[in-house]
Amino acid sequence: MAGIVVRDVRRVDADVVAALGKAGVSTVHEAQGRTGLLEPYMRPLFPGARIAGSAVTVSVPPGDNWMLHVAIEQMAPGDILVVAPTSPCSDGYFGELLAVSARARGCVGLVIEAGVRDVRELTDMGFPVWSRAVSAQGTVKATLGSVNVPLVCAGALIAAGDIVVADDDGVCIVAAEHGAQVAAAAARRLEREEEKRARLAAGELGLDIYAMRDELAARGLRYV
Amino acid sequence: MAGIVVRDVRRVDADVVAALGKAGVSTVHEAQGRTGLLEPYMRPLFPGARIAGSAVTVSVPPGDNWMLHVAIEQMAPGDILVVAPTSPCSDGYFGELLAVSARARGCVGLVIEAGVRDVRELTDMGFPVWSRAVSAQGTVKATLGSVNVPLVCAGALIAAGDIVVADDDGVCIVAAEHGAQVAAAAARRLEREEEKRARLAAGELGLDIYAMRDELAARGLRYV
Amino acid sequence: MAGIVVRDVRRVDADVVAALGKAGVSTVHEAQGRTGLLEPYMRPLFPGARIAGSAVTVSVPPGDNWMLHVAIEQMAPGDILVVAPTSPCSDGYFGELLAVSARARGCVGLVIEAGVRDVRELTDMGFPVWSRAVSAQGTVKATLGSVNVPLVCAGALIAAGDIVVADDDGVCIVAAEHGAQVAAAAARRLEREEEKRARLAAGELGLDIYAMRDELAARGLRYV
Amino acid sequence: MAGIVVRDVRRVDADVVAALGKAGVSTVHEAQGRTGLLEPYMRPLFPGARIAGSAVTVSVPPGDNWMLHVAIEQMAPGDILVVAPTSPCSDGYFGELLAVSARARGCVGLVIEAGVRDVRELTDMGFPVWSRAVSAQGTVKATLGSVNVPLVCAGALIAAGDIVVADDDGVCIVAAEHGAQVAAAAARRLEREEEKRARLAAGELGLDIYAMRDELAARGLRYV
Amino acid sequence: MAGIVVRDVRRVDADVVAALGKAGVSTVHEAQGRTGLLEPYMRPLFPGARIAGSAVTVSVPPGDNWMLHVAIEQMAPGDILVVAPTSPCSDGYFGELLAVSARARGCVGLVIEAGVRDVRELTDMGFPVWSRAVSAQGTVKATLGSVNVPLVCAGALIAAGDIVVADDDGVCIVAAEHGAQVAAAAARRLEREEEKRARLAAGELGLDIYAMRDELAARGLRYV
Amino acid sequence: MAGIVVRDVRRVDADVVAALGKAGVSTVHEAQGRTGLLEPYMRPLFPGARIAGSAVTVSVPPGDNWMLHVAIEQMAPGDILVVAPTSPCSDGYFGELLAVSARARGCVGLVIEAGVRDVRELTDMGFPVWSRAVSAQGTVKATLGSVNVPLVCAGALIAAGDIVVADDDGVCIVAAEHGAQVAAAAARRLEREEEKRARLAAGELGLDIYAMRDELAARGLRYV
Repeated sequence: MAGIVVRDVRRVDADVVAALGKAGVSTVHEAQGRTGLLEPYMRPLFPGARIAGSAVTVSVPPGDNWMLHVAIEQMAPGDILVVAPTSPCSDGYFGELLAVSARARGCVGLVIEAGVRDVRELTDMGFPVWSRAVSAQGTVKATLGSVNVPLVCAGALIAAGDIVVADDDGVCIVAAEHGAQVAAAAARRLEREEEKRARLAAGELGLDIYAMRDELAARGLRYV
Repeated sequence: MAGIVVRDVRRVDADVVAALGKAGVSTVHEAQGRTGLLEPYMRPLFPGARIAGSAVTVSVPPGDNWMLHVAIEQMAPGDILVVAPTSPCSDGYFGELLAVSARARGCVGLVIEAGVRDVRELTDMGFPVWSRAVSAQGTVKATLGSVNVPLVCAGALIAAGDIVVADDDGVCIVAAEHGAQVAAAAARRLEREEEKRARLAAGELGLDIYAMRDELAARGLRYV
Repeated sequence: MAGIVVRDVRRVDADVVAALGKAGVSTVHEAQGRTGLLEPYMRPLFPGARIAGSAVTVSVPPGDNWMLHVAIEQMAPGDILVVAPTSPCSDGYFGELLAVSARARGCVGLVIEAGVRDVRELTDMGFPVWSRAVSAQGTVKATLGSVNVPLVCAGALIAAGDIVVADDDGVCIVAAEHGAQVAAAAARRLEREEEKRARLAAGELGLDIYAMRDELAARGLRYV
Repeated sequence: MAGIVVRDVRRVDADVVAALGKAGVSTVHEAQGRTGLLEPYMRPLFPGARIAGSAVTVSVPPGDNWMLHVAIEQMAPGDILVVAPTSPCSDGYFGELLAVSARARGCVGLVIEAGVRDVRELTDMGFPVWSRAVSAQGTVKATLGSVNVPLVCAGALIAAGDIVVADDDGVCIVAAEHGAQVAAAAARRLEREEEKRARLAAGELGLDIYAMRDELAARGLRYV
Repeated sequence: MAGIVVRDVRRVDADVVAALGKAGVSTVHEAQGRTGLLEPYMRPLFPGARIAGSAVTVSVPPGDNWMLHVAIEQMAPGDILVVAPTSPCSDGYFGELLAVSARARGCVGLVIEAGVRDVRELTDMGFPVWSRAVSAQGTVKATLGSVNVPLVCAGALIAAGDIVVADDDGVCIVAAEHGAQVAAAAARRLEREEEKRARLAAGELGLDIYAMRDELAARGLRYV
Repeated sequence: MAGIVVRDVRRVDADVVAALGKAGVSTVHEAQGRTGLLEPYMRPLFPGARIAGSAVTVSVPPGDNWMLHVAIEQMAPGDILVVAPTSPCSDGYFGELLAVSARARGCVGLVIEAGVRDVRELTDMGFPVWSRAVSAQGTVKATLGSVNVPLVCAGALIAAGDIVVADDDGVCIVAAEHGAQVAAAAARRLEREEEKRARLAAGELGLDIYAMRDELAARGLRYV
């Protein structure tokens, strides 16, 4: 089944992608019904990055990064590389040279359920990465994988062109066809939070803002 | 057994709490006989925070943060929220809005054997958190837990009003009744370290300062 | 077998060590045939440190840091402490006072397959550490280990006098007798990368630079 | 998005399912191009079970097994329950009483990326289970999930009606539409293995049976 | 704080202990409000054992089993050894000789948040063990711990004389003062399960037995 | 550095190997000064096997089992395959067909820091395996490794011809040159244990047999 490169990927409108990026992972995850989140072991290489973009997916064999070179040719400006190995692997598939190459093609970041290396160089470049591991372990170029096929990365299903949102909270996937709707829901959510934040900052309690006291009492909560 | 909120918590004197916070986790842990430490998987969300305060304990079901709203009402200035799920869970129980609310009630930090989210916002606020995980995964409000009951958090027993000390080295619990005595022992320890630091910096060896050579030889240490 | 301190350790020329440090972990690892890497759970205490030095090895019992005092006496300027417990242990074997002492003897860093403490103090000192854990858990001084015997640390074999290279990518060991040869290979590798970096930054693809297209087609890669 | 029960699930022909079960996990996984495997942490509760069946999928909240009762009503003879929590959870969602109920509806086994309990009773019943954990931790019935929606379980995508193959090697999923084709490929594979087994048992080497010597030499293998 | 042996331990009546053992871990855990469970990484050395007894607790340093010898003298017939290290350790603290000695004093089993060895011999003896690990790694006898002090073992608080219930589902602790009450609640629970088991085996659904349909509909469950 | 097969391996006398196998892992580990043990995550595929033999070592790339075919040709009767991947990998490198082939060449077992498959078939054959994982995940044959070079497997250094001892307690390595001496020490240890076992079974305490009471008191142990 490996050995396939899908060239024709439909991207979601840049406005939608930008709106999702602005909302951030936690808000987007809530706005689409608490789905799409990658496992929490996917952590940013350095703090502070917040990106969104269309996924170029790459299925790779363990310890073999050949397909990353193939994938980079398929990238369009604003895309994000999403890499998943076919079996658990922590090797350093990606480093500075690949980042230079990917960025030259418009890539804005990497999500990889494996390892990366050249941490200092990637940090100095400001190239955002979410990975399972950091490892200098080199990889080979001997076995085919596939590009832009649907895959499972860190517990989430993702297809080429789906929207990847990533920040310090982790990574969330929005299916391409739901992008606009989720972006709108996320914007509404941000508005509502603004009002709550002000009330909470003033010392009002969530117990009162959300009118929880009766329900808690009905369930049997006792103050002693 | 869940569904109880204990209102009446005795806090330790602020002077004692401050002295323990100044000593820091490693010194306090040593000063009370190497006990009270939480498991090392409890890590700070951002480096540099060092806090101490009285514990408000919260026992929560997996994936359910309802009781955090209940707990915030019970907080007094200088308190620290200590949250433990009844079974292992990495969900994001706590984020920016709860931090705003908790801080408005005087809370100075959070220790949670589960996940948190809104990492960037919490960092920007300077709200100190020690957690087992970062996860954007949302929680529900459906099942009761308890507030201010004794619980085990990350391997350590803690009761409401016990003193929580937390810094880059982790988290340590001091039982309320031992607070003053441990603070005094910690202060003595800090003094002794000052003198040793100067001698070690001057090149003197621990082997000589602590007079270890004879004991090592007696145990059979051989130089070859 | 424990209880031995080997005094006579041959160090590699400082020029070779410096060249390896300049090349960094990922390049050195590649230059010596992708060997010598420690497990990726060995992480730096703070970002940005890059060191190389001759190993002073220390085999320690679980929860017992007595031999670190013995080892510090054996250090020469430019050395790196390499510590491995005889069974898995996350205790805090090393903190500020030992760092002050080690530095006074010329030690430039620590690699430990266990825990360290005094994170803030070590960071303020700029004393570089790569460890498996951070833990305030104190240790005892009751049982002998050995110094400068060959040992396995985080999956890699290391002998006293071998060269340790460590940076944000992890830790790599170069056998003393291969130092000069690996340093030369690493330097050549850095040169070659410079040229590739420029071409990739200009938008040229790895597929073309490395002439991969024919081989990929021969293996059956299909574009659809 | 939760709160949906899909009633209408198309099952694959029993002959195809039986053929896949007979081939077993490792052969089926190879026969469909090395895909479909669940993570290796999914282990059988007791050795020796080998089953295949149509999936009834259940998406459950952490610590809440309410939907298992809903799912059991949807089972047909020969089905297998496939349960995935929406966030990592090791609680004991399933025990003897649910097994009695599921079996009464025709269920032949359970695959759950969480915990089970009543190990001895399930073993005595011969009810096959593959799980991530064993835990007596009880669950609540407070929050909705969904039944027969597509989900990711232990790293594999699975839809209702897909074929689950499980034995001592783990669990493999075959998409319903590929069932017949994979069963045929698996049967061919079993035949070929039979012949190879005889030759290998007679002492012939894989190096010769698979004609590897030239390729190994071409890659540079050296005998010293 | 270490170095204490509490001699005077009150045991719960043998009838109560036996009733709890007959009920088993999952039922006891439910009967006392879903508390008292040890972490699920505590697994039996061999399947099929089911025991209950009074705890003799032992707090041990990492890699040091000296206090087990001290503890064995404190055992009475029907007791269970409960061992927790002061920091995480997988060493083999306990093997055949200690089992022979403990059994000679009336000990009926071991619960240890660390490692054991002599697996085959312990299995042949039928000496039940629940442990975190199996490891041949030997321990020393150099540092004091304590016997019959309250401790946290695998996430649960336990005091000397508390009742330990252990079977294939794990380990559960019942506080001595709640023993009789929990035993009675467990017995009632077993009776109720008997009736449910018969109805479920006859094909009746939990949805109907527990009258869940209205509540599910009220929460919005939709069948499509 | 990969791509080498060392043909000439010196085996230790069969008597010595047999004596070590009879002593078992825990005794051998103690007899050689508590060294040589593999990490405790190396577990037997089925209980009850106890083997010893000369190591044929195999260094393999992640997800690539090509070199196993090369290694099998190098085996002599009584040898044990020892396989370590160059980076962490759980794939199923070894299954029934390789076991049939290896056994035909005299191989008596496998130690692999990765995964195996065909668990039921290997168990039915009685082919002993110690592995880090069970996984049906298939491997490729694309990249060279090495045979009979020294390597680190699960934390232990092992060279071709070293003696591997494995049983339900794990795996221990004895360097070829120490074989006879360790076998003799192990035999003496077994004798001494026999006498202690009888005394302990009769109810005598370790405290008295090993004369620990004075030392414990000297360290400050207090009975209260």
